[in-house]
Amino acid sequence: MKKTLLIGVDLGGTNTKIALISKETNILGRSTFLTKAYTLKEDLIKKLINEVNGLLRSNGYSINNLTGIGIGLAGLVDYSKGFIFDLTNISGWRKVPLRSILESKLNVPVYLDNDANAICLGEYLYGAGKNSNNLVLVSLGTGIGAGIIINGRLYRGSSFSAGEIGHIIINENGPKCGCGSFGCLEAYIGNSAITRAANEGFKKKRSKILNRIIKGNIKNLTPQHLSLAAKEGDPLSIGIWKDAGRYLGIGLSALVNLLNPDKIVICGGISKAGDFLLAPAIKSLKKFSMDVPGKIVKVLRSKLGDDAGVIGAASLVRYGG
Amino acid sequence: MKKTLLIGVDLGGTNTKIALISKETNILGRSTFLTKAYTLKEDLIKKLINEVNGLLRSNGYSINNLTGIGIGLAGLVDYSKGFIFDLTNISGWRKVPLRSILESKLNVPVYLDNDANAICLGEYLYGAGKNSNNLVLVSLGTGIGAGIIINGRLYRGSSFSAGEIGHIIINENGPKCGCGSFGCLEAYIGNSAITRAANEGFKKKRSKILNRIIKGNIKNLTPQHLSLAAKEGDPLSIGIWKDAGRYLGIGLSALVNLLNPDKIVICGGISKAGDFLLAPAIKSLKKFSMDVPGKIVKVLRSKLGDDAGVIGAASLVRYGG
Repeated sequence: MKKTLLIGVDLGGTNTKIALISKETNILGRSTFLTKAYTLKEDLIKKLINEVNGLLRSNGYSINNLTGIGIGLAGLVDYSKGFIFDLTNISGWRKVPLRSILESKLNVPVYLDNDANAICLGEYLYGAGKNSNNLVLVSLGTGIGAGIIINGRLYRGSSFSAGEIGHIIINENGPKCGCGSFGCLEAYIGNSAITRAANEGFKKKRSKILNRIIKGNIKNLTPQHLSLAAKEGDPLSIGIWKDAGRYLGIGLSALVNLLNPDKIVICGGISKAGDFLLAPAIKSLKKFSMDVPGKIVKVLRSKLGDDAGVIGAASLVRYGG
Repeated sequence: MKKTLLIGVDLGGTNTKIALISKETNILGRSTFLTKAYTLKEDLIKKLINEVNGLLRSNGYSINNLTGIGIGLAGLVDYSKGFIFDLTNISGWRKVPLRSILESKLNVPVYLDNDANAICLGEYLYGAGKNSNNLVLVSLGTGIGAGIIINGRLYRGSSFSAGEIGHIIINENGPKCGCGSFGCLEAYIGNSAITRAANEGFKKKRSKILNRIIKGNIKNLTPQHLSLAAKEGDPLSIGIWKDAGRYLGIGLSALVNLLNPDKIVICGGISKAGDFLLAPAIKSLKKFSMDVPGKIVKVLRSKLGDDAGVIGAASLVRYGG
């Protein structure tokens, strides 16, 4: 029996996505469940094992067809030991040796890493980061994080927490961030900051286009609505993406000035605003970067899109650390 | 004849320092000249060659005793080719293949790198950065730069310009920087920013201690005077170092959050303020860093001190890229 298949797991605070992936990186099957429905660690682990087995079975395979399972998690992970220190949005997951737990139950190699690292590796090997040497993957969503490839290898830092670009300071007197600090990039362009800015703008001047899209209920508003409205020419939404882009560019310029990468790949929900966000971001990045590193760096959108999480996680198996 | 000796050259905009160094990293002899006195590139190269030969001769050696010559320069350098793209404070040095010029005239291996990279390597191999894996050397002076060691190797970036920490943005609405941008770290804590702050403070409230140290002439004031005055308890000087430390800590927190280094080593003229600068810098670094990377990182002063430039440059020879 050939052990050529991979499973990639994107274990997020809201949803867990699982994909069965061929050695050519084609997705052969998918499965999704609500992470939040499993508040006990043991229950979530059991659910994960059941889903993996179910996904294999429903596609005509068994665990014996797997090279391994890769898991990307939003949290602090020792990839070398497959050990979770803590998860960002799921409580009860402090100090969990998830690799050894899963390997003993599934009898297949398991690899864990922080989700931004996994996505970064996926984009580097199979997506927008191909042929790069020094790559930073920036994930924009509720939280803002980064994965870093240095000289063709994932760089995790001295205690596995490199890439916290969401918490570099844009302005020491800026708004309070969820992390407790002030003026972090995330406090300007995280999901909730953008939603808040839209709410405030909407209260000042009610936008017709946006009002139709959110069906008259401002409480429904998400960044996705702002992307839709911007595409229809809504000035409020376009303005909000423009501001967010300026701040994003300032944050990216710190990356560029410090690390002089050849590519920055942007992914995550917020990045779906596309050029409404990226054009002002690139303009601001160029303004606030030194000439030499600002000239060489290319800013690209993720190529793996919504599959970046599972493909990235699966790529951990091949990469092997 | 044993080829065991090294020569390290710290080619700065004001002075050029040369040292003859044993394989045990002891300094056997020194020589210094005013870089500014040689406005023509050819004259500066000739002077450099004469000084190297003179230093060897006066210590009873010849070029045949050298393993190689290492040179650190303030500018953009392709270390792999020994090629200077540009020097920061010396005009007429665009696109100079200095390695091949010197090797053909001296018949000994020559290694070039950016000065912050050279100092970083020196501190990593022989100074405060020993036993580190991921180290950032931050040099504080007229300009503010950094050298980066990642997994035990110098990291230069995709176009040899990594480490420009002086130009990360602290506040987009901040003061204009020499680089043309606004609110860069260097615009807050570079030599001239600190001198300007002291001037303004002194005009508002004349400090007795500082006035004695600068001999009544505010135009004489340098950051070194502020260090002396702080040691005597001068509140103005102490306050200026405290402010500078807060800004430095914000800049370092970007390093810490992005790179999660185990050590940051501080060197350069401004760093001689010691704990007047470093205590508030560390406090601010902890405040603006994420918990995990903020906890692990150690902030230390350079151990090689004024010799960091020449020892670092010489260490390029052994390191060999």
